[in-house]
Amino acid sequence: MRSEFKLIELLKRQIPRGLQGPFEIGDDAAVLPHSGRDDGGGPLLLTTDTVVDGVDFRIGKISPEDAGRKALAVNLSDIAAMGGVPTAFVAALGIPRSLNEKWLLRFYWGMIRLAVKHRTLCVGGDISRSRSFFASISLLGRAVSRRIIGRSGARPGDWIAVTGRLGGSILAHHCRFTPRLAEGKFLAENYPPNAMMDLSDGLVQDLGHILQASGVSASIDLARIPISAAARKLAKGNSCKALEHALTDGEDFELLLTPSPQMKPSLDRHWRRRFPSVPLSWIGRIERGKGKISWLWNGKKIPPPRFRRAGFSHF
Amino acid sequence: MRSEFKLIELLKRQIPRGLQGPFEIGDDAAVLPHSGRDDGGGPLLLTTDTVVDGVDFRIGKISPEDAGRKALAVNLSDIAAMGGVPTAFVAALGIPRSLNEKWLLRFYWGMIRLAVKHRTLCVGGDISRSRSFFASISLLGRAVSRRIIGRSGARPGDWIAVTGRLGGSILAHHCRFTPRLAEGKFLAENYPPNAMMDLSDGLVQDLGHILQASGVSASIDLARIPISAAARKLAKGNSCKALEHALTDGEDFELLLTPSPQMKPSLDRHWRRRFPSVPLSWIGRIERGKGKISWLWNGKKIPPPRFRRAGFSHF
Repeated sequence: MRSEFKLIELLKRQIPRGLQGPFEIGDDAAVLPHSGRDDGGGPLLLTTDTVVDGVDFRIGKISPEDAGRKALAVNLSDIAAMGGVPTAFVAALGIPRSLNEKWLLRFYWGMIRLAVKHRTLCVGGDISRSRSFFASISLLGRAVSRRIIGRSGARPGDWIAVTGRLGGSILAHHCRFTPRLAEGKFLAENYPPNAMMDLSDGLVQDLGHILQASGVSASIDLARIPISAAARKLAKGNSCKALEHALTDGEDFELLLTPSPQMKPSLDRHWRRRFPSVPLSWIGRIERGKGKISWLWNGKKIPPPRFRRAGFSHF
Repeated sequence: MRSEFKLIELLKRQIPRGLQGPFEIGDDAAVLPHSGRDDGGGPLLLTTDTVVDGVDFRIGKISPEDAGRKALAVNLSDIAAMGGVPTAFVAALGIPRSLNEKWLLRFYWGMIRLAVKHRTLCVGGDISRSRSFFASISLLGRAVSRRIIGRSGARPGDWIAVTGRLGGSILAHHCRFTPRLAEGKFLAENYPPNAMMDLSDGLVQDLGHILQASGVSASIDLARIPISAAARKLAKGNSCKALEHALTDGEDFELLLTPSPQMKPSLDRHWRRRFPSVPLSWIGRIERGKGKISWLWNGKKIPPPRFRRAGFSHF
């Protein structure tokens, strides 16, 4: 069978264009035909994300609460990436006969605790028998502004910025991360970027999605990539390897955005006051072109780095 | 582990009451805090239902198109039961490595073809690796009237009616059924019943859910139960067995409703003109009490029938 992205393309082509809703499929969350404007704010958003035992976590390797937390958090991250506020979700669980009931209750509690924190309603669900445990969550949200922030709006001249520090999420971050809801809302309300998404498959691969959807190229300054302590730990002192982790490891769940150049000075100032503990790093620029990335080191052109793998695949 | 319904109760108790949304969890679809009234019509509805290979169908035993059709149809049936119109869905698929890509495309096509028929948008999805194939669909809809038709509104004196003919769905109906969307909308617009649900676990078990949620009892006249040709075929001429199939087989996906007594004459007349090929059978009455069913045969009390099993469980 094909790779994840080719298969998604193939399935998308099965859907008649008129049946795909107001926006083409491909952003972090779907924009719904219901406007939702009567409750204030922008259109309704809907996203779905599944976690499967043995793929996204391993029962026995992480706490049930962390697994449940992650199942909801990956969905919250998608709503954050659309500049939205989460409102309500449904959870469909696939439960193997052998699963311990206590484990399930603790999983559920991890999910609910995060929902409480973000004032997100749990309005229903479904349980099925299955061979491996899975949790398929569908989350509804409301965009804070009428203008939809997707992946296809990046324009030549835009800056490329990223929140937090990247790489090494496998050490703990992948099931403990804080979805960037406050940051996404702040951006959508005050400094709407031309494009935004959450990093789930690694910076290089995810930036590629924005470039392709927007029909542009980019230059990235490797000296400006914010490298996490976990990426450095994994690299054991090898700074080239640490950089590679930051560029290609999956499940950072940070925001990748392309603000227009006029916004940069004010956004930068305002951001530091508002989110003193979350860095916003300006790592490159959007350029004319067709989906290529050129590489810099402190502003000087360098040959493209070679990666052992381009990015992370859950599939 | 506990039975399906006990487990759902247990999970529900994990959710703080204030986090459950405007209505308690338990109806066929959730009623969302977004009113959706700006697009005309009533509140937004959200439902989720999963089909798993080996539980809800068997790859190789039914056509991929039928399996895909069923994955969406069970969700459409839930929206029908709330007197709603479906609007948009997302599909999360769990795909084993061994799955044939052609099978998957045909599955998808079966789903999309039914979506086209009901003008329901496919706005996104997600694919994951998993050991068994599953499809978890979340469907959004809009109630046609402001008054929500759930399971808890049945009142003593109401009639109990059911659409179509019951039992034996295993022979073909369970993956070929037509979700009763036109019928549900007609009822919600013209003759809103006090309670309504779709039959997925067998008449006796599902009626039990309405009785429990509404805090009432019921009497059922066995001579008035509409028995399907498939139920008769399974019973091989034994009419007692055929009746048992009609009362306890799962996956009828017909509507079970409790109209107030004043509505009956006009609804009955109007229904026959509007849906000449779908019978509406008046099988009993709601009574005061605490969730008990008493049994009649042509209006005369009889002892309770004994079933080999109370109903169907997917779990």
